[in-house]
Parts: sequence; C-alpha cells; structure tokens
Amino acid sequence: MKLSIIIIGDEILIGQVTDTNSGAVARVFGPMGWDIACVRTVPDEKRAIHEAVEAALAEAELVICTGGLGPTKDDITKHTLAEIFGGPMRRDPEVVDNIRRVFRLRGLAMNSLTEAQADVPESCRVVQNLFGTAPVMWFERSGRVLVSMPGVPFETEGMLPEVARLVAARFDSDNVLRHRCMMVGGITESALAERLAAWEAALPPYMHLAYLPVPGLIRLRLDGRGRDAAALDAEMARQFDGLKAAVGEHMRYDGDASAAEIVLAACRRHGYTLGTAESCTGGTIASRVTAVAGCSDVFAGSVVSYANSVKAAVLGVSAADIEALGAVSREVVEQMAAGARCALGCDCAVATSGIAGPGGAVEGKPVGTVWIAAATPAGVQSRLLHLPGNRARVIDRASTEALMLLASML
Amino acid sequence: MKLSIIIIGDEILIGQVTDTNSGAVARVFGPMGWDIACVRTVPDEKRAIHEAVEAALAEAELVICTGGLGPTKDDITKHTLAEIFGGPMRRDPEVVDNIRRVFRLRGLAMNSLTEAQADVPESCRVVQNLFGTAPVMWFERSGRVLVSMPGVPFETEGMLPEVARLVAARFDSDNVLRHRCMMVGGITESALAERLAAWEAALPPYMHLAYLPVPGLIRLRLDGRGRDAAALDAEMARQFDGLKAAVGEHMRYDGDASAAEIVLAACRRHGYTLGTAESCTGGTIASRVTAVAGCSDVFAGSVVSYANSVKAAVLGVSAADIEALGAVSREVVEQMAAGARCALGCDCAVATSGIAGPGGAVEGKPVGTVWIAAATPAGVQSRLLHLPGNRARVIDRASTEALMLLASML
Repeated sequence: MKLSIIIIGDEILIGQVTDTNSGAVARVFGPMGWDIACVRTVPDEKRAIHEAVEAALAEAELVICTGGLGPTKDDITKHTLAEIFGGPMRRDPEVVDNIRRVFRLRGLAMNSLTEAQADVPESCRVVQNLFGTAPVMWFERSGRVLVSMPGVPFETEGMLPEVARLVAARFDSDNVLRHRCMMVGGITESALAERLAAWEAALPPYMHLAYLPVPGLIRLRLDGRGRDAAALDAEMARQFDGLKAAVGEHMRYDGDASAAEIVLAACRRHGYTLGTAESCTGGTIASRVTAVAGCSDVFAGSVVSYANSVKAAVLGVSAADIEALGAVSREVVEQMAAGARCALGCDCAVATSGIAGPGGAVEGKPVGTVWIAAATPAGVQSRLLHLPGNRARVIDRASTEALMLLASML
Repeated sequence: MKLSIIIIGDEILIGQVTDTNSGAVARVFGPMGWDIACVRTVPDEKRAIHEAVEAALAEAELVICTGGLGPTKDDITKHTLAEIFGGPMRRDPEVVDNIRRVFRLRGLAMNSLTEAQADVPESCRVVQNLFGTAPVMWFERSGRVLVSMPGVPFETEGMLPEVARLVAARFDSDNVLRHRCMMVGGITESALAERLAAWEAALPPYMHLAYLPVPGLIRLRLDGRGRDAAALDAEMARQFDGLKAAVGEHMRYDGDASAAEIVLAACRRHGYTLGTAESCTGGTIASRVTAVAGCSDVFAGSVVSYANSVKAAVLGVSAADIEALGAVSREVVEQMAAGARCALGCDCAVATSGIAGPGGAVEGKPVGTVWIAAATPAGVQSRLLHLPGNRARVIDRASTEALMLLASML
C-alpha cells in the first residue's frame, strides 16, 4: 500500500529549516510495508495545501502531513483541512486540558492564541499530543486516511509510534519489507559496482541493492519484499552472505553504522577507551561519538586544541615543532594523538590538524589539506588528506577519515 | 515566477539520507525572486519521476531536479528525461574529458560504468560539472526549463551559482524579494505573537512575518516583495525598526545568526577569547563554534570532559565535590567553566554537565537534567535546566542554552 507525505511550511520551502520529519515518518512506516509514493513540501498557503492533499489522496491510501499547526497566524493547515474534510471548528475540551498540562509542565502562562490550538474540525478524530500543544488530527474520506501531525520534529517523532499503532489497526497489511545494511570503505562507488555486477544481476526480482555513499564510506542496503516473512528472511540471509563474499576485504561493518559507531564497537571489543584531539574538526568527532547513546564506557573525552597554545599546554605538543613545521604537519598531529592518550588517560585517540577554509591557506598547504592521526597502545599512524569542498565538507570528511583510520588499526 | 524542485532518490524517500539540496536550491533562487511552488521527493522509478516532472512543468516556469545521476544501476533519471524531452542518448566528448579530469584529480581509475556517465539525451544542453562526474543537463519545452543536477550536495551546491547565472540570463525577472531576520530569546512563540499582534495587523499586504522557532531561540523573518527595489527597501527598513521596537528587550541579534554566531560576535566586541568545557554536550558546542568560518580569532578550544577523571585532571574540578555532589551539580559545572578559562587560557567559557539519556538517570536527576554555566572575567553564572525529549534534543537544546547564557552576560 502507498503512503504519501506532505510537509507544510514556508520556512522549509525557502530553505531556512531542513525537513527531518519526512525521514522520521518513512523510517517508521517503511518497515511496516508502506511504499512511500511521494513527499511534497508546500508553503503555508491554502491553495497549495489543498492541491497537495488532493494529489496525495489520489495516489495513496494513507497521507501523513506535518507542520502548519502552531498558534501563530502563518499557520493555516487546520482551516484548509476543515474545508477539505468538512465540518465547522469545535473547541475540544480534552485538547484544552492537554494544553494546560503542557504549559504547567513547562512553567508557562496560557494566552488566547494558545487556547485556539484546541479548535479542531468536527470531521476529525483527535489523537492527544503527549509532546506538545497542537493536536494530532485523523481524517477519513472514501476509505483513505489523512493524519495531520505537528511540525516540531520532537513532537512528530514522539507521536509517530502511536500513529503507527492506529494505522496498523486500521489497515491490515500483509506485505513484508526487509532491509539489511553493511558499511564499505576503501573503494569508490563505481569500482564497487563493477565488483558486485554479477552478484547483483543474479538477485531475484523482489530484491534490490542500493548504494548510499556518505563522505568517506559507502552504505549498501539490500531491500526485499514478499508475503511470506520466513521465506523472505531466509533468502535475505542467503543473499546477504553472498554480498559479504563479493565485497570481501572492503566490508567495514555488518549493519548500518556511523564511523563513530564502528570505532566504538571496535574499541569495546578490545576493552579500550577512546579520546580525541581536534584542531580543524573542532569537536565534531567528539560530538559524533557522544551522539551514540551508551558511549560512556568507551569515551573518555576530547581536547579541542584550536589555538596552538592549547596544543602545547594541554596536549604537550612541542612548541618548537609547531613553530618550525606548522600546526598542519605530520609531527604535530602525531604528537596530538599521543598527547591525547596521555592528557585524557585513554588507550586510543584520533587527532586532526588541517585547513578547513575558506581562509587559512598557506604556501604549499591549500584549503582542504588535513593531517589525521590515530594512536593505540601499539603505536601511532598518520595520513595526509587533500579534501575537496567547503568548510563543512572538509570537517565532515576529515572526521570520518580519522575515525576510519583508527578502525583500520584495531 | 514559480520554481518547483524535484528530489530523486530512494535513499531520501525511505529516510536513510536527509535531503539538503532542496534547501540549497531555495536559498539561491528565493532571493532572485522565484517563488518555490513545491518540493517533490520521489523514488528512483521511471513512472514516479515522469509524473513529478509533468506536474512540476505544469505549475512552474522553472524546474530543478537533483539526484539519480550516479553511475550505478539504480539511477534511471537520465533515461526518463530522455523519454520526456526526446532524443536518443549520445556520448558527449567534453563530459568524457571532464570525467577523466575529475578521476585524475582524485587519483582514481576509470571504468566502463564511469564512462557511461557521459551519455546524455540529444535534447539537452550540457553544463559542465566542475565538482564531479555527472553532467548538469538543461532541457526546454514550451518555454519552460528543467535543469537536472547531480544529487551529491557538494556538487549541487558547487554548481548552483552557474545554474543561477544561466537561469537569470534566460528569464528576466522584475520581481524583487527581500528578507530580514532577527533572533529573539527569553519568550515563548505564543507570548511573542500576542506582543506583536498589533504591529503585524498593520503590515502592508506585500509583507509577511514568519516565526521560525529553533530550540532555545525564535527566528523572526520579515519578507517583502515588489517591483520597485528602492521603495521596497525603504519600507522594509521602516517596518523592521517597528518590529525591533515591538520585540524590545527580547531581541538577541539583528540578523540571522546561530547561537554560536551571536556569542562569537559578542566576544569579538569585547576583545574576549572563548572556550568550552563540555560533558553531556560532548563537543557539540565547540563544533558549532568552529563551524563558523573565521572563528579562530575568538575560539581557543575545548575540553570535552566526558569521564570524571578528565574533569578533575584537565579542568581541575574538585574530585571530592564530584564524589559528594555528583558530576551533574552546580558546583561541578561552575568549576568546569572556571577551569576551562584556566586550562585553555581564554577569557570566557561555557560549561555543561547533565544527563542526555536514554540511560544515566539517578534519584532526583531524571534524563534531561542539565546544569549549564558561563564564566567571564566578571564572574560565573549557572542555571539548572529540565529539558524534554530524546538524547539529540537534550544535547541540542543544552548547547544553545549554554551559549545564550554567556551571550546574556556579555
């Protein structure tokens, strides 16, 4: 069955905010067997919302909208839905209670605009929003369902399990979808495609391999679908073993994992603790490691030594080497990695020192020049990278490469 | 004039990758006077791409597609566009040269799949991709234009200025669009809306105020459009002054800025340097500060003291206080902020210590309990936060609140 998603909001359409709700919806409903037909992002305008809702209801059994439900006057979704599905607005007393509860929890005062969030079209069934004030609204027409959810990602993500439960009860799907991922490194996408061509050509028609490159890694995802879950699971396992054999030494992880998760798993296997010493990546590696829940058994901490004085004072890098060779040099980055092990009292460390740009380039060291190093109890290794792209991309890629250098040593 | 955007890719539709290309396109074309009619995200399927292209060409003079142009077999955009706009495929010799150039630069070997990227429909005009191998293709039909761009964000963003230049030459738009932003803090969205109601009601019909809350801050954006640029600029300036007066003491920044940019500007004004001492935020504050190009005159560095041993050894926090009061306490976070000034040799510092979850809660300190502190040469201040949401949201919000606490002290 088909699901279409509508994201409502000028702020997303003009590029001031990046939509993450459509992905959150897809990650919940995809594994339940729903095919995502289309995601439409439309402005806070009655006509655009109206057209998107009609187009989505024409192509899909289920439509999920997010956004356009706040208390301020640029939000008109609710009135447009009342026009489409009918009914005057009514003030829902349970929603009023919920808004009072949320405001009490947050220690805030109510006002008339806030109370108006409890107005809903007569034609909808309200699902109480446990994470905020805007109600989740469930509409039906000709056997098709539209669920309108708030736009704040925390609220959408919080309410998705309950909406998914209600959808599963309403439709009973007998299509099963399976995904399996692996992380691949040290090979280009096209060289990998050539290596996998024969294996891919022999895949059954209900299976599909997708290449999902992220800077520094390639995620391979094998998708399968069918009606018999046990048979599908068995065939997925068999085909995935074939994929592993074809990928060979380039497989970095069995599963979907970030570079930080791959390194945390490798450290945990060895009983090692981890730290970082970061100059050009500025704390990005540490923030990626700490984004992983439960990292505290492995992760000790980090020294972000943006200023050279911090490299010397906290990490013990030789001030003479910084002076003579520059902060972006093999000697300095290796001393940073070794110094992090010492300063943070950890077994393993990664270090970065480079020129992320747009300024800072010097003779012989253009923007994108980055030295990375990794240290373990067995020693230190380092590599020089020449990375393309803007500041964000250089930081992103250098962070992944430093983590993958350590992963390759463990 | 209207612009519609089509994002092609299963990986985005199923939520494994977050689309950032639509925002990049909108941020370039919006200020040129293009109204974004709709963003459609569709799967790598001939029929879905076909339908999206026809719907977009029906509603908009300009359509920009991204994605579906890689060398691997799940990319079928190019063949679908050949069907829509006509023409057999031809191998473009200049694209072959460009692919060779890119591969040489990256030190990679060519293969047959890579060469096939130089096949383009006869009906298109090629715009050379300076950032990768997939060509940018320009199609026209009945006076409307479709530009197909690669899906890799670095390549899309790199090629957008050239595409924008060609679009501006092809269409001459006489509609001018203006935006002005301010950052507001210390007030809820609905209280702010109530405070601004009278001012908003008096806005001319060609101006519009949008509320764009980000965790811990509200971005207000005033949009205006018209044909006479000078008159529009004058009226925008007058209305924005009115907005400033209405927002009053809650204005945190005149312009569009992140919390990190607000703090960097405030430090620069005072001639202060900045550091961070992070426990639960794990380097996120440092990475946000270093994401800002040119931060090195202000930012010294950071100590991510995830382990208590690092809090004591590097930041000089009293081990006895950690033992007696816990790491998540006023005393510890204030010592972290003061210790960062000392260890990093900086004038100002922010510090965080909290429980981001999902594990780690203890009696009296549930998930979301975060102490934040900020230190300047004038002293230290701290605050206790009780933040809702999951790990990512707690880290996000605590990072912003810590920066805004320092901003309020400068």
